[in-house]
Amino acid sequence: MRRFVVVGHDAPTTPDFPLDDLPGSAGRLDVLARAVIEALLHSHGIRTQTRLWLVLGDEISIRFDGNALRNLHPDERSTAALIRSALERRSEAIGHRPVEVSPGLEVRRWGLATVLEELAEDGTVLRLTEAGDPIAEAEQPTDPIFILSDHRDFSPEEDSLLDQHADASYSLGPIGLHTTQAITIAHNWLDTAGFRVY
Amino acid sequence: MRRFVVVGHDAPTTPDFPLDDLPGSAGRLDVLARAVIEALLHSHGIRTQTRLWLVLGDEISIRFDGNALRNLHPDERSTAALIRSALERRSEAIGHRPVEVSPGLEVRRWGLATVLEELAEDGTVLRLTEAGDPIAEAEQPTDPIFILSDHRDFSPEEDSLLDQHADASYSLGPIGLHTTQAITIAHNWLDTAGFRVY
Repeated sequence: MRRFVVVGHDAPTTPDFPLDDLPGSAGRLDVLARAVIEALLHSHGIRTQTRLWLVLGDEISIRFDGNALRNLHPDERSTAALIRSALERRSEAIGHRPVEVSPGLEVRRWGLATVLEELAEDGTVLRLTEAGDPIAEAEQPTDPIFILSDHRDFSPEEDSLLDQHADASYSLGPIGLHTTQAITIAHNWLDTAGFRVY
Repeated sequence: MRRFVVVGHDAPTTPDFPLDDLPGSAGRLDVLARAVIEALLHSHGIRTQTRLWLVLGDEISIRFDGNALRNLHPDERSTAALIRSALERRSEAIGHRPVEVSPGLEVRRWGLATVLEELAEDGTVLRLTEAGDPIAEAEQPTDPIFILSDHRDFSPEEDSLLDQHADASYSLGPIGLHTTQAITIAHNWLDTAGFRVY
């Protein structure tokens, strides 16, 4: 199982945002929608062994499960509508319990600390940062959990949570990347394990 | 210099398409707009040593030059507006001559054959295809020219042009990828040359 956690800093935590202005008044929700698309779709369909978590405003977490999701299309608007449908159900998420919004789509009242604690139990937490070791030289773990930020850097609080939970820190290359580009390259790193000719 | 050529099969060759329905009535122009964004932008700015060519309907070619472009933003709509502004000037492109639409943006009446002939003169043409050799094991050429298709496969005619002009055929991995994902991984392959720890 591959998992990606994307931390959204400006994204809405309530469903009252316009689908027509994702980069603007919806707080760069276009970045998060594209992250969902990049994490879960390849050219021939869905990645069934992948889950994508969005952590919004450190209070709401939305989980997209490639194994159960229906109706995920490679366009920002319909993906943002899925995010909105999850936010519409947020008040039903009480305590630790998730709400199943539709097949493969769940919403929880979890901040980043809870997400990291829960996920780290059965996977290897990998922080992606320009200061990390070159990922191309690293071993691919069985159950990687990649932690990424949106268009902003991690806050000092998030960084110290990652210090606590990350099993390794990797760099994808010497050039700063968009969130979606980082997801694509991380997938490719896993996809091509054992694919090389020696 | 890195160059990417993306062949658009359904995309418009005239400017009368709606910016509000890029995936639909604009012939998947969203795919081509995202290809421009992925090829030319990283998280800290523009890739000045990269050019992206769009070949539309095998009759119009639009060239985006990272070294001169202004006002490229990471959203599909404003990028599609740039494509439209180039198509509005297409009738001024006579014979082999380009029209400069705005800094770094040119339009030509060139089909794929002409683009390949012109570009192959001072670069290494690389076909990206699932049947190629694993790219991770290949040497990075000085002036790579990547040829990609949009959401459709290359036509038999395009394939035979590529047979004629391609210096090598590479696969980016065992999983079929979107055009934008392929661009991201090709860039990363070049970015990380010499970046590995041995």
